[in-house]
Amino acid sequence: MSAPLRNDTFLRALRRQPTEYTPVWLMRQAGRYLTEYRETRGRAGSFMQLAQSPAMATEVTLQPLDRFPLDAAILFSDILTVPDAMGLGLRFAEGEGPQFERPVRDEAAIRALTVPDPGTSLRYVTDAVSEIARALDGRVPLIGFSGSPFTLACYMVEGSGSDDFRIFKRMLYARPDLAHLLLDVNARAVTSYLLAQIEAGAQAVMVFDTWGGMLTTPLYHAFSLDYMRQVVAGVRAGLARVAPGRDVPIIVFTKGGGGWLESIAACGADAVGLDWTVSLAAARRRVKDSVALQGNLDPMVLLTDPETVARETARVLADFGPGHGHVFNLGHGIVPATPPENVAALVETVHSASRRYHIGF
Amino acid sequence: MSAPLRNDTFLRALRRQPTEYTPVWLMRQAGRYLTEYRETRGRAGSFMQLAQSPAMATEVTLQPLDRFPLDAAILFSDILTVPDAMGLGLRFAEGEGPQFERPVRDEAAIRALTVPDPGTSLRYVTDAVSEIARALDGRVPLIGFSGSPFTLACYMVEGSGSDDFRIFKRMLYARPDLAHLLLDVNARAVTSYLLAQIEAGAQAVMVFDTWGGMLTTPLYHAFSLDYMRQVVAGVRAGLARVAPGRDVPIIVFTKGGGGWLESIAACGADAVGLDWTVSLAAARRRVKDSVALQGNLDPMVLLTDPETVARETARVLADFGPGHGHVFNLGHGIVPATPPENVAALVETVHSASRRYHIGF
Repeated sequence: MSAPLRNDTFLRALRRQPTEYTPVWLMRQAGRYLTEYRETRGRAGSFMQLAQSPAMATEVTLQPLDRFPLDAAILFSDILTVPDAMGLGLRFAEGEGPQFERPVRDEAAIRALTVPDPGTSLRYVTDAVSEIARALDGRVPLIGFSGSPFTLACYMVEGSGSDDFRIFKRMLYARPDLAHLLLDVNARAVTSYLLAQIEAGAQAVMVFDTWGGMLTTPLYHAFSLDYMRQVVAGVRAGLARVAPGRDVPIIVFTKGGGGWLESIAACGADAVGLDWTVSLAAARRRVKDSVALQGNLDPMVLLTDPETVARETARVLADFGPGHGHVFNLGHGIVPATPPENVAALVETVHSASRRYHIGF
Repeated sequence: MSAPLRNDTFLRALRRQPTEYTPVWLMRQAGRYLTEYRETRGRAGSFMQLAQSPAMATEVTLQPLDRFPLDAAILFSDILTVPDAMGLGLRFAEGEGPQFERPVRDEAAIRALTVPDPGTSLRYVTDAVSEIARALDGRVPLIGFSGSPFTLACYMVEGSGSDDFRIFKRMLYARPDLAHLLLDVNARAVTSYLLAQIEAGAQAVMVFDTWGGMLTTPLYHAFSLDYMRQVVAGVRAGLARVAPGRDVPIIVFTKGGGGWLESIAACGADAVGLDWTVSLAAARRRVKDSVALQGNLDPMVLLTDPETVARETARVLADFGPGHGHVFNLGHGIVPATPPENVAALVETVHSASRRYHIGF
C-alpha cells in the first residue's frame, strides 16, 4: 500500500469537497516540452520502450512534479495499450502518431478479440503504477487512465489516426451490430484494465474519449457514452474487490462533447473533463453542480508569454467562479512547443488566484 | 437580369415560407466525386485555373444539377479568393490544401492590407456568377459565398491549414489588437465581395466559418461572430444599391459552432448551417424557429450504400420534423470517395420523404 497522502486537494475537488485552492494538473504534463523528458525518451529508444519500462515510466511521470507544484501525477503510458495487448501490434512511426499493424475490420477479426489479462500482457502498466506510487510516497495522488471503448475502436478499425475515421464511421452506419460487438469487448477490457491500475495503486482514474465528439447526437449516446457508462459502473462494482475501503474517483472526458454535457454528467462519473470551447460557468449551470468539472484552458495559451498565461488562467478560474469542485487543467494535451516557464506561470496563478474562490464556501 | 425562377423552393425555405417539400443542395456538390468534374479539372490544369475561368467554373457548377434534381446551384470557387486578391498569393499544392505564399504575421503586413475592388482583382468571380446565372436560366437559385472574416484570417496568418492554427491563436491571445485590425479589413472585404456577387446575379449568399469552432466562447464571439454580424449588416445595407427590390437571404455556418447556436441565430442572418453533431430538433427549440436551419447529414453516411443513405436521410428529416424552414444539406462538404449513386439516393429520399412534413403547416 502507498504512504498516506500529504496533498489530497485533487481528490477532494473531484468529490466536490472543500479545498483551500483549486488543484491543477495538465494533460500530457510528462512530455516533450521538457528537456529531461526528451533525454529519457532518447535513452529509451522508442515511445513504447519508454512506456514499457516501469523504471523509465516512473522517471518521466515524476519529472513535471519536480519542476512544478502540481497536485496530481498521471501514469506515463498511452491510451492504446489495451488493443496492443489484444494483439493488434501498436507502433509509433516517427512524427506520425499511433498505428496498428493488424486493424480489425470484419466480423471474424472482431469475434476473435478477447479481454486481455492485465496480469500478463499489461503487466508492464501495473508494474509502472506500483513503482510510481512507491516513488511518489504520498506526495500527490496518482491518476490511472485508458482510452474510451469508442476511441480505442476508432484506432482499432481505422488502423491509425484519421481526419474523419471514415472506415469506422461506415461500420457505425452500415454495420452497427459489428460496432457493438467490438465496443462490448472494449468496455470489458477497459474496465478490467482500470481496476488493475487501481489495485496497483492508482488513486483516481480517467477515461479519455478523444474522438466521441465527431459523432451525431444519437451515435454518441449509443456508441460512446453508453460504453463509458458501462466502464464507470464496472469499475465501481469492482472497487470493493480490488481496493477494499478505498474511494477512487472517476473522470470522463469527451473532447468536443460540450453539446452532450448533461448526459455525460449523468453517466455515473465523479468528474467531467471539458475542452476549451465550453464555458465553465455555463457548464456548472447545465450540470447543476452534480459533478466536478476538470479543465479547460486552451493549450495554445501556453505558446504565448507568462503575463498572457496568467491573465487567461485567471479568466478560467473566474469563469468557474466561487465554490468547490473545479480541477484546473488544459482543454487538451500540452503541446511540445510549450515553454516550461509558461507552465510555471500557469501553476503559480492557479494556486494563488484561486484561493479567493474557496473562502466561505 | 436572370430569367424568372422556375424552382424557388430553396429561397422560400430560407425565408421560412411554406414549401411542398424540403429543398436540398450539398456543400461541394460540384467536386471530385463526379467523373465529369475530374475531366474538366484535368483540362483546366490547376484548381485556381478552373476557378478563374468563368466558362469552366460554369461548366462544373452545372454538372451536379444535370445528375441530380438539386434545388440550388452554388458558385464554383474557393473560400480564399479574397485574401488572394489582397495579394497573398493563393496556391493549391497537390494533395496539401490551400497555401499562401505571403502570410501576414506582423503589424506592418496587416496595416498594408486593403479591401480589394471586386470589379478588378475578383472580376473572374463576378464574371463566373453572371455566366452561371445565364446558364441556369431560372432553373434553380444560385448561391454566392465567401469564407468568414475569421476563417480567412486563420489561413492568412498561418499561411496554410493547420490542426490548431497556433500562430494565429497566439496572436488572438497575446496581440488581440492586431487580430482585430486584420478582421476589420476582412469583414469589409467580404461584405463588398458578397455584394458584388449579388449584383452579378447571386440569389442567396453563404458565409463559411470553417474554423470558428476551435475558439473559446468569448473568443468566438469577439473574433468570429461579431465580424460575421458586420458582414450580414453590411450586405443588408448594400442590397438596395446593388440589387434594388431583390431580397437575398443570407446563410451563416460555423462548423463546430453548435454550442453558440442561440447567438449565431441572433446575428441577423436568415439561416444557420449546422454540422452533423447537433440535433436539428434541439436546434429548432434553441433558436425558437427564428431562423431557417440548413444541414446536417454526416458526409460519411454517403460512403455507405443507398439503403443506409436513405435511412439516415429520413432520420435527419424526422429530426427537424413537421414544418417549414429546413434546407437539407450535409454537415460538411461531400468527400471525393462518395459514390454518385448514394447522392442520388439522398436527393430522392429528401424529395419524397419530406412531403409529409410540409402538409398542413
